[in-house]
Amino acid sequence: MNNDRKDVTKLHSRRKRALQSVKSQLSDVDLWRSSAAEFLATFIFIFIVCLSHMMAPSTAANTALDARSKQLISYASDPLQTSVGIALTYATLIQCFEKISGGHMNPAVTFAMVIAGHMTVVKAAVFCLAQLGGSFTAAALCYGMFPSENQQMNAVSRLHEGLEPLQGFGIEVLQSVVLIVTWLATYATSQSQLGSSAIPVGMAYLANTLWAGRLTGSSMNPVRSLPPALLSKYYTNLWVYIAGPIIGCSVGAVLYTYVFVTPDRKPRA
Amino acid sequence: MNNDRKDVTKLHSRRKRALQSVKSQLSDVDLWRSSAAEFLATFIFIFIVCLSHMMAPSTAANTALDARSKQLISYASDPLQTSVGIALTYATLIQCFEKISGGHMNPAVTFAMVIAGHMTVVKAAVFCLAQLGGSFTAAALCYGMFPSENQQMNAVSRLHEGLEPLQGFGIEVLQSVVLIVTWLATYATSQSQLGSSAIPVGMAYLANTLWAGRLTGSSMNPVRSLPPALLSKYYTNLWVYIAGPIIGCSVGAVLYTYVFVTPDRKPRA
Amino acid sequence: MNNDRKDVTKLHSRRKRALQSVKSQLSDVDLWRSSAAEFLATFIFIFIVCLSHMMAPSTAANTALDARSKQLISYASDPLQTSVGIALTYATLIQCFEKISGGHMNPAVTFAMVIAGHMTVVKAAVFCLAQLGGSFTAAALCYGMFPSENQQMNAVSRLHEGLEPLQGFGIEVLQSVVLIVTWLATYATSQSQLGSSAIPVGMAYLANTLWAGRLTGSSMNPVRSLPPALLSKYYTNLWVYIAGPIIGCSVGAVLYTYVFVTPDRKPRA
Amino acid sequence: MNNDRKDVTKLHSRRKRALQSVKSQLSDVDLWRSSAAEFLATFIFIFIVCLSHMMAPSTAANTALDARSKQLISYASDPLQTSVGIALTYATLIQCFEKISGGHMNPAVTFAMVIAGHMTVVKAAVFCLAQLGGSFTAAALCYGMFPSENQQMNAVSRLHEGLEPLQGFGIEVLQSVVLIVTWLATYATSQSQLGSSAIPVGMAYLANTLWAGRLTGSSMNPVRSLPPALLSKYYTNLWVYIAGPIIGCSVGAVLYTYVFVTPDRKPRA
Ligand SMILES: [Ca+2]
Ligand SMILES: [Ca+2]
Ligand SMILES: [Ca+2]
Ligand SMILES: [Ca+2]
Repeated sequence: MNNDRKDVTKLHSRRKRALQSVKSQLSDVDLWRSSAAEFLATFIFIFIVCLSHMMAPSTAANTALDARSKQLISYASDPLQTSVGIALTYATLIQCFEKISGGHMNPAVTFAMVIAGHMTVVKAAVFCLAQLGGSFTAAALCYGMFPSENQQMNAVSRLHEGLEPLQGFGIEVLQSVVLIVTWLATYATSQSQLGSSAIPVGMAYLANTLWAGRLTGSSMNPVRSLPPALLSKYYTNLWVYIAGPIIGCSVGAVLYTYVFVTPDRKPRA
Repeated sequence: MNNDRKDVTKLHSRRKRALQSVKSQLSDVDLWRSSAAEFLATFIFIFIVCLSHMMAPSTAANTALDARSKQLISYASDPLQTSVGIALTYATLIQCFEKISGGHMNPAVTFAMVIAGHMTVVKAAVFCLAQLGGSFTAAALCYGMFPSENQQMNAVSRLHEGLEPLQGFGIEVLQSVVLIVTWLATYATSQSQLGSSAIPVGMAYLANTLWAGRLTGSSMNPVRSLPPALLSKYYTNLWVYIAGPIIGCSVGAVLYTYVFVTPDRKPRA
Repeated sequence: MNNDRKDVTKLHSRRKRALQSVKSQLSDVDLWRSSAAEFLATFIFIFIVCLSHMMAPSTAANTALDARSKQLISYASDPLQTSVGIALTYATLIQCFEKISGGHMNPAVTFAMVIAGHMTVVKAAVFCLAQLGGSFTAAALCYGMFPSENQQMNAVSRLHEGLEPLQGFGIEVLQSVVLIVTWLATYATSQSQLGSSAIPVGMAYLANTLWAGRLTGSSMNPVRSLPPALLSKYYTNLWVYIAGPIIGCSVGAVLYTYVFVTPDRKPRA
Repeated sequence: MNNDRKDVTKLHSRRKRALQSVKSQLSDVDLWRSSAAEFLATFIFIFIVCLSHMMAPSTAANTALDARSKQLISYASDPLQTSVGIALTYATLIQCFEKISGGHMNPAVTFAMVIAGHMTVVKAAVFCLAQLGGSFTAAALCYGMFPSENQQMNAVSRLHEGLEPLQGFGIEVLQSVVLIVTWLATYATSQSQLGSSAIPVGMAYLANTLWAGRLTGSSMNPVRSLPPALLSKYYTNLWVYIAGPIIGCSVGAVLYTYVFVTPDRKPRA
């Protein structure tokens, strides 16, 4: 009975300490500053992603456009220009926000950073909410600017017609593995040497977009795909774009942190 | 009375010291050397920007060209090539002039550097005059080379027909925020680590051009837009291209310097 | 007789030590970890290379496609997009795997690293097996996804019709010399300075692809060319793609390591 | 008389010492090693430049092609692809040969390095001979591979029909100023920080090619223009391509080294 009471007391004090840790983390001004930065970065990124896809001329969608939208997309864009524009925006925003919040703009990346031991669960949870908020605000703004439903569908992540959902899932997983390993491989060295993950991670993003863009739309990011899907009420294969990046980034983080790591991380053979 | 006299004397001596500071700054040979560098850099940049836009074939303008201009633009250029060419020129000129004057080539960037505490007001004022001088000389030279008014209009910053002026203003502000935060985020680290803001800032410029070029012409710079507008006497929405970059760069500098800054600027969470 | 016995004993002990060295190397967990990394990196790289070429529309191959393949390649791709996508994938995978295994993904590069004194023969042999395994698995997966034989032929390295086999061999040798010298020139400095060979080597790969892609397909890598050739049973000029990279990388490694080296490798004149 | 004799003796000994310095420089194995590197680098660069231009389809030249040449150029190339390919080759060769010889591949650059105090006259003279030898060998090889005179003309540097020779000269001078200042601005820092001028100088080259390629062919290099002109016996405006780069690089080197230099080269204001 004395023992039981001890255990209960222990449990109580553990919970108490955990709660206090959560409380002290949540009262840290730095957490809210960096979460605001994640909100802003994600807002800018998703705004530009949606805008770029909505302005791209799509043969299927051109018929039902209103006059104003037709004018806006009259300037033809090729897929290379759109891909390079989005990837460089991603790299630039990482450069801008890296020292403030890390510049993730992606819950799958934030989750993988927890796995890799670079972030606490509490901070990651607040970041995810900020990323969701930023992305929904951005998508809603774009949907307001482009009233045509056909054009709005251009912003929705969709699988190529010739692709099975499971194949699409595999391709999103593969892209996310490559993306997160690039994040992690440049994370440790970014401060002393290159100063930034921006260029390597931006390159990884562009590389993925150029080979997989035509297959899955190359999302790699739940908050890039969720808001347009909900706003357009298009739920087909949505699970691919939620589960794919989260599973891919988790697998990549486990591989990099726990499997392919030498005790001393010595640079090369 | 004795107190009043003291105050007056104090005021006098303050004014005197301020004037002496301005005088001593203006007599520094370094100021004039770096201002000459800003003149030269801005001249080269605006010359290449105007030339590139004037040579780009425009369906509307092709009818009224004189024979010589027709020959010059016969070599078709796609928007990606024009954008990459201008952005790499910008990055290269930053690389060249960074150690001499900073390589701003843009009064909005210079003004933001004052806000961020990297420059004195006196130096910034002389820089702006140099940038205005360089850009007008460059635009006038291009207008001399291309006598066709239709072609000259290609160098003028204009909003896409489907865009409201306030939307255009917002887009110029957003681009300028991203541009200046990239400048500031790489400013502190540029000397010890990467050695240059050239590549990150050039990437930010290209990223903006690729998504916003079709909407506003992606100016981000008052002296890129003012000289062609005055020489072509086209003042429609000119305020967007003067106020947008200045307000955007100011907002970005305040955000980066005073809001999103941790006390010790520790690199990441 | 005593002498003879001594020699025999010496020989025995030499063999014994060599065998022990091989044994101890093969029992090192680090070797198997880095070989697994080479398998994974080569698998991802060759999968993306084959997929990209199979999806590229080829005028000759379009007639005999099944309906599903037609859908998959309906998204037109230009050679610049394909080349940039593959080269950035190469750079990204080097970035990801450089600290684990070096990120060679190419037996000719691994062989040259032995010549340059950066690797043991035992490790190189295991790496080559891993690279062969990864590349065959990747090519087989792609062949399963694209059942059309015409499309599969797009993944096969072939000489341009206007080119003699010996000219093609020379062009593969030249590209491989440039590739391996870039590897070696950035090898020594990669740890203290740039942190990575990824960007320079990726740039060298892209440069080669852009001028030589139209001539030889720009392989520079036996395991990029061997699996598709065997799976498509197309052996014409296969020797060019096996011998060219191996000879080119060897020549480059000898030139860089033994000819163009100053005693102290002082940076410049 | 005694004084006169002294003077003569002095002059004799000065001449003697100068001759001895030349002799000792010419007997240095390092000079010959680096000159061989310049020969090889220039050979590879000019070979790829000529090949790329000869393979580019030219509407005017297509009529008189022999069958084999027609096959070789059947793969259409756009100007962006050609420009990026050549500029990345330039950057890659600088990366490869920078630590051995500097990787100039250009007498105008070598001459400017003498002005900037980074090279002796003797070494520069031997480098220029090596660059001439490498470029002529490369051009002759390309002319052997492409027998059609129309195609060979594609490798010749020519002014756009709408351009006056003096305008072309000015444009070559401007490009060369930008190129050499990028070389010099990254020269001092290249060893401790970025480890290489390759990327900045390659970017400067690409920037110039993208805006000036359509006007002058963007040579910036006497040994890029001289060999094709002599082999094709096309001497029109040849002076522009010899004098332009040499004068531009000299002006740039003087500006950077003697005008825009602060006593302590302090990084920024
Ligand atoms: Ca899409
Ligand atoms: Ca415009
Ligand atoms: Ca091929
Ligand atoms: Ca030409």
